[in-house]
Amino acid sequence: MTMTHDPRTSDEVLQLLRADLGDRVSTDPALLERVRSDKSGWRSDDAAICVVLAESVADVQATMRLAHEHGIPVVPRGAGSGLAGGATSSAGSVVLSLERMDRILEVSLDDELAVVEAGVINQALGDALAPHGYVYSPDPASKAISTIGGNIATNAGGLLCAKYGVTREAVLGLTVVLADGSLLTTGRRTVKGVTGYDLTALFTGSEGTLGVVVDATVRIRPVAVGDVVTIGAFFSSVADAAAACAAVTANRLRPAVMELMDAHSVAAVARMLGAAPKAPGAAYVLVQTDGAGARAEADAVVAVLESAGAQSLTATDDPVAGEAELAFRRSFHPALELEGEVLIEDVCVPRSKLAEMFAAIERISEAYGIPIPTVSHAGDGNLHPNFVLPRQEGASPEAPLVVPERVWQAADEMFAASVELGGTLTGEHGVGLLKKRWIENELGREGLELQRRIKAAFDPQGIMNPGKVY
Amino acid sequence: MTMTHDPRTSDEVLQLLRADLGDRVSTDPALLERVRSDKSGWRSDDAAICVVLAESVADVQATMRLAHEHGIPVVPRGAGSGLAGGATSSAGSVVLSLERMDRILEVSLDDELAVVEAGVINQALGDALAPHGYVYSPDPASKAISTIGGNIATNAGGLLCAKYGVTREAVLGLTVVLADGSLLTTGRRTVKGVTGYDLTALFTGSEGTLGVVVDATVRIRPVAVGDVVTIGAFFSSVADAAAACAAVTANRLRPAVMELMDAHSVAAVARMLGAAPKAPGAAYVLVQTDGAGARAEADAVVAVLESAGAQSLTATDDPVAGEAELAFRRSFHPALELEGEVLIEDVCVPRSKLAEMFAAIERISEAYGIPIPTVSHAGDGNLHPNFVLPRQEGASPEAPLVVPERVWQAADEMFAASVELGGTLTGEHGVGLLKKRWIENELGREGLELQRRIKAAFDPQGIMNPGKVY
Repeated sequence: MTMTHDPRTSDEVLQLLRADLGDRVSTDPALLERVRSDKSGWRSDDAAICVVLAESVADVQATMRLAHEHGIPVVPRGAGSGLAGGATSSAGSVVLSLERMDRILEVSLDDELAVVEAGVINQALGDALAPHGYVYSPDPASKAISTIGGNIATNAGGLLCAKYGVTREAVLGLTVVLADGSLLTTGRRTVKGVTGYDLTALFTGSEGTLGVVVDATVRIRPVAVGDVVTIGAFFSSVADAAAACAAVTANRLRPAVMELMDAHSVAAVARMLGAAPKAPGAAYVLVQTDGAGARAEADAVVAVLESAGAQSLTATDDPVAGEAELAFRRSFHPALELEGEVLIEDVCVPRSKLAEMFAAIERISEAYGIPIPTVSHAGDGNLHPNFVLPRQEGASPEAPLVVPERVWQAADEMFAASVELGGTLTGEHGVGLLKKRWIENELGREGLELQRRIKAAFDPQGIMNPGKVY
Repeated sequence: MTMTHDPRTSDEVLQLLRADLGDRVSTDPALLERVRSDKSGWRSDDAAICVVLAESVADVQATMRLAHEHGIPVVPRGAGSGLAGGATSSAGSVVLSLERMDRILEVSLDDELAVVEAGVINQALGDALAPHGYVYSPDPASKAISTIGGNIATNAGGLLCAKYGVTREAVLGLTVVLADGSLLTTGRRTVKGVTGYDLTALFTGSEGTLGVVVDATVRIRPVAVGDVVTIGAFFSSVADAAAACAAVTANRLRPAVMELMDAHSVAAVARMLGAAPKAPGAAYVLVQTDGAGARAEADAVVAVLESAGAQSLTATDDPVAGEAELAFRRSFHPALELEGEVLIEDVCVPRSKLAEMFAAIERISEAYGIPIPTVSHAGDGNLHPNFVLPRQEGASPEAPLVVPERVWQAADEMFAASVELGGTLTGEHGVGLLKKRWIENELGREGLELQRRIKAAFDPQGIMNPGKVY
């Protein structure tokens, strides 16, 4: 895959784009600055030529045709809420923003699907479905700010995905603008279908390296009938809490939500909320059951947690009180941001290895002297260890993340521990820029080479989000 | 993609294979005859050079290395239970059978997964899990005879998949021998993971055209806690029955099983069982609910079916009686085989179009004077229309299927109707040989070209199951 840059200058490309797209092409310095970063805090050294604020599929096609003709790199971008640097500007690139393509094109309750443009905010689809009693299952913690196109780019998970599946399971079909500007539709409106290779799954999680997703046909589902019961419990150590979660699974219980926060995480949220932690020094497990058997399932979960050593356990079927427990968990990232610069990580191990992974993180935290508060979607073995770094003197919370090499070494040990336990570098955030250096450890040389060949089949010039993932 | 045949004769290749693999290379005429066909009844004009009965990953690699070196086509094959001619011998090919690789390598209840060789029969895994209270969800009607490797090759569905997902949702990772004999692992043992493109999904449904799946890591799940309630109901027309199924979905009910048999299908099964049909001329709907809310859900289903015009409705929570109802449905294919030669088809439409698709099939049946008894996995809009052709005078039931051009024309109209309704050529059986002629209708020229490029990225010589799908 070779990049052959056109001799034209960036200015000339800019003029050509403007001739086609008018004021949907922006060189506003604030916007160019914004697209250097995402929610990882990392900031690209390289500025984009411009940002195209596409309003239609035709805009996206026009941008890709020009980029293709002139060998210009294109970085597709949603809301910029990514955590791996996957949608940040690279050298000489056009950042292609899908944010303005935010229409819900169709909701079909009969077929239990919705068709949305890529820039629709996840929560906006949820809000549109709620009055009908339907829900879009994938619920990344960022759902209030992240786009469905971005969720597809990273195959986002969320709190509910242990029971209801990740983004891949929710996507039936896509419309994609390819590197040369041509239009491809993948998948279908049917629940099943096996004609040809599953390109829908291939694009899901491809982080903008194969094409630009412009709309998606997604499954929706009826809100589960029955109660919602929310259980909170404290454990004297994270190892006990992890063992309790494993016991829930081993007892064949499948709660809709099962989250684990270690003592550092609980303390940070308590500090932010100005609340005394209910059980100082303790780890916290949050479980929610739903559906027809919610009460019986909750009773069974309570029994398992209590016999696993739960302290000050509470259970409620009051929706407001339940939502408050979830809000405590969702406050984790904002709470850490108050304490320093945060490198948010995302490993996933087989469920039975959860306690071992927590132990490895604690060991690395001590060895390197770096606080690593960790939360986990315990229902599926996904952990978010957060490296908290002291903020530089006088720096604002908006200042870009600077990760010292020593922290990368600690992260390196953590990824090695995850892969060693049969786990992965990333459960739901993607590889982007920040995990590129470890990808070969997981995929192997042969696997990586094959992935590059697939990339080349879609994008022979290498203009789609170059430098990311591969 | 070009095929460069080695000048060596088939005999020389055979000798080289025998030198490597000894008596795992068979030229038994009965076996060579068997691998010309599958359960579609279609018979290939072309004989294989030999059948390799692989017993290990090393055997598969040795076969592929030789094939790669000499440009010999390889047809991977499981139990030969396919319905689209996808694993039948092609000219000058080596048929690579995975049937002997039938070991269950691991069952981990803690991680809710099993690792199986490709030749493990679907039901055999089910039997191994049952004592632990676990189940492997994908349940194609062929599960007693089909291999999990074959299920993966076609992304098989089944009766339970509306609630519990198709094969793709159950596969976490694969080991694959590539066209050049090298070994690739895809996916992982974790529930989530987004490092690199989703090659696991790409191989699932690829019908042996990208590589040879040798083992798979699959999800297992606990048997649903609670009752199982089975409901059977007759309707005076298939249109009413389809409307009743749509009403079940519209009422936000998600039964584990929802099957529909038209009157022709019901009559054929009744004839085979020597039973008088309970409601002559009527279509039959079979629903099964499970889990904690099974009884309440069943009550709601009964209410919906009754208000949709159900006749002689029965509901039972007796497992034996329930299984008898399912056995009636599973007897469909054997019953038709007694009545003539059968071309088994497999279209899938958006759920709301189910009644329209049944109407289209009836129209085509009348126009061409061909009986087309049809059953449907109504919970996900998947229909199996079966073209019943008079068996040739004196021909045995084992004689190969001969499909007159007129029948292909009728099938052509049926696929056009499905695609017109937003549906697909194949919901779960695959494209194989028998649906090749229609693939461009669904994928479009551009989509097909892209699929060919992916194929070439894995198999530049074009030796993997050539002539199938593409």
